[in-house]
Amino acid sequence: MTELLMTPGPTLVPLEIRGAMSKPVIHHRTPEFNDLYFETVDRLKRVFKTQNDTFIIAGSGTSCMDAAICNTIKPGDKVLSLVSGKFSERFADIAKTYGANVTIIEADWGRAFDPELVKKALTPDTKLLTMVYNETSTGVRNNIQPISDLLKGTETLLLVDAISALGGDEFETDKWGVDLCIAGSQKCFAAATGLGFITVSQKAWKIIENNPTPRYYLDLRKYKGAKPTPFSTPVTSIYGLSAALDLIAIEKLENRIKRHAENAKLCREGVKKLGFELLPESEDICSNTLTAVKSDNATEIIKKILENHNIRIAGAQDHLKGKVFRIGHMGEITKEHVEKTLAALEDAIK
Amino acid sequence: MTELLMTPGPTLVPLEIRGAMSKPVIHHRTPEFNDLYFETVDRLKRVFKTQNDTFIIAGSGTSCMDAAICNTIKPGDKVLSLVSGKFSERFADIAKTYGANVTIIEADWGRAFDPELVKKALTPDTKLLTMVYNETSTGVRNNIQPISDLLKGTETLLLVDAISALGGDEFETDKWGVDLCIAGSQKCFAAATGLGFITVSQKAWKIIENNPTPRYYLDLRKYKGAKPTPFSTPVTSIYGLSAALDLIAIEKLENRIKRHAENAKLCREGVKKLGFELLPESEDICSNTLTAVKSDNATEIIKKILENHNIRIAGAQDHLKGKVFRIGHMGEITKEHVEKTLAALEDAIK
Repeated sequence: MTELLMTPGPTLVPLEIRGAMSKPVIHHRTPEFNDLYFETVDRLKRVFKTQNDTFIIAGSGTSCMDAAICNTIKPGDKVLSLVSGKFSERFADIAKTYGANVTIIEADWGRAFDPELVKKALTPDTKLLTMVYNETSTGVRNNIQPISDLLKGTETLLLVDAISALGGDEFETDKWGVDLCIAGSQKCFAAATGLGFITVSQKAWKIIENNPTPRYYLDLRKYKGAKPTPFSTPVTSIYGLSAALDLIAIEKLENRIKRHAENAKLCREGVKKLGFELLPESEDICSNTLTAVKSDNATEIIKKILENHNIRIAGAQDHLKGKVFRIGHMGEITKEHVEKTLAALEDAIK
Repeated sequence: MTELLMTPGPTLVPLEIRGAMSKPVIHHRTPEFNDLYFETVDRLKRVFKTQNDTFIIAGSGTSCMDAAICNTIKPGDKVLSLVSGKFSERFADIAKTYGANVTIIEADWGRAFDPELVKKALTPDTKLLTMVYNETSTGVRNNIQPISDLLKGTETLLLVDAISALGGDEFETDKWGVDLCIAGSQKCFAAATGLGFITVSQKAWKIIENNPTPRYYLDLRKYKGAKPTPFSTPVTSIYGLSAALDLIAIEKLENRIKRHAENAKLCREGVKKLGFELLPESEDICSNTLTAVKSDNATEIIKKILENHNIRIAGAQDHLKGKVFRIGHMGEITKEHVEKTLAALEDAIK
């Protein structure tokens, strides 16, 4: 029997999507593929809730994190990075790599940011503010709007990683004023790993067009207006993404988000009932798509659940390693999957 | 009925590979996937005929072309680029993007390089020589050994794009002294687009380790020693690549290369018999994996073959557009496919 993936990505890829990926390949420079590609991009934009230009890059989610920064930052540019986990840290690392002058506002892993601290650190010459919407390493969902409000009327671009939330939680790219938003195929879309998505606002284009930082494969200017893409497109992966969008359309995005919220609540209540404490310090900042749980026996619990129940949950990273386990409930994960996982957890701690 | 892809990539992806891509996804940070990944890399190395470090990057072939250059070149570095088609031109473009001082040695599209000219242009401070083994845009196969011989004992790194030849033609990464060799999944491997491959010699590592050019997603230092990869791996694409390597193992690489050579010969003889002239100026520089043919009616011929026979062949790029058509015979293409294409061509010119 196949292992049940209750990890925060990659997640269970349903047969509908894997089946679509087994279709014969058509050439990527044909009217037929052009139509499929741009239709897929249009449908993606509806999930992002954006009118902004949206691109699909052949690469993992990190390719898009990199693209967002190397296209907008030049050496010496001031970047403000909100860091409270592995992936928000990655944004700061990438910005430093490209020579940015990075100011980090830290929140403890599992805590929310204080917008007042962000306000104080923000200067008129801040070029870019980076943050993660749904911090996969901690199960914390960060509030975008209060941060975005601080940037109104400024020159600062807002870059948000929504990789592990988009398609499974509310996200309003345009309403929240997100200039660059990133997502990927392997999380709430439940498709195979290998495609990154990025949206680009007009405000961001003004910087990107003239940004001198050398880049080629990830140069967003090459993607703009390409028909359909500047380099060979992974047609098979687009088939998969298209099927994933079909599944979202059949379920309806709002129902899908509701399902994720219900499963998240079920998971939180289940682990608390078993005596565990959540890593996020309060319920209102908990992720819709994964649950991070404190436990000094995390490593043993993960092992037992895998060996005795064939269910894979995840450990934690860096200083939380061995002290936290994470249960993913994203994509096509159902109530029954969550219940089964909770039962396995109960068994593991007996 | 599905269109027969006789294009020089993407090519027909056989059901064995597409079926493998429909398998349930396992997590990419598990001992099981680690084993599959490194076994796949080992098998890839046997196709490259190399002992050098070999990496798989989630991206199109261009991601690896970019990686080869941004990892080895800093602004002002001298690069010698042998250019005789679209893809060799791309190397020069990428090198310029990263601020290299690029000297271009041109050969007419369809002609071979004169090693004497290369020898003259080579200086002790040339950091990198770029060339394409099998120029997909012209159907010319360039001789690596005479160029490589010029670099013996020098500091110059040899970068070769073997994207459209590896797995379908002789290639000797180590014997020919290729420091950085690039290939991709969607050509002679007959797998889906979306994976790039790159090999790195010890001589190249010495430069890469200290090269200051900022890069993140394509930073080869992050791939070295990663278990198995620094960023999320497209497990589904690795399933496909592994199945492609199975097919190569079953056929045996030497038989596969022989089949490609026979099909190439059949194709060349067939088009010549129909009164066409090949784009490459002589038979001995013709590619094993595609055939480029001169014709002022190229556009019409391509259209007729597609509409009347459901076979897709390719046009040409840039100044050859409308004057050349290209027939791909790579990957799983058989003698029968080539014969069918020649019959369609005969019908198209009636």
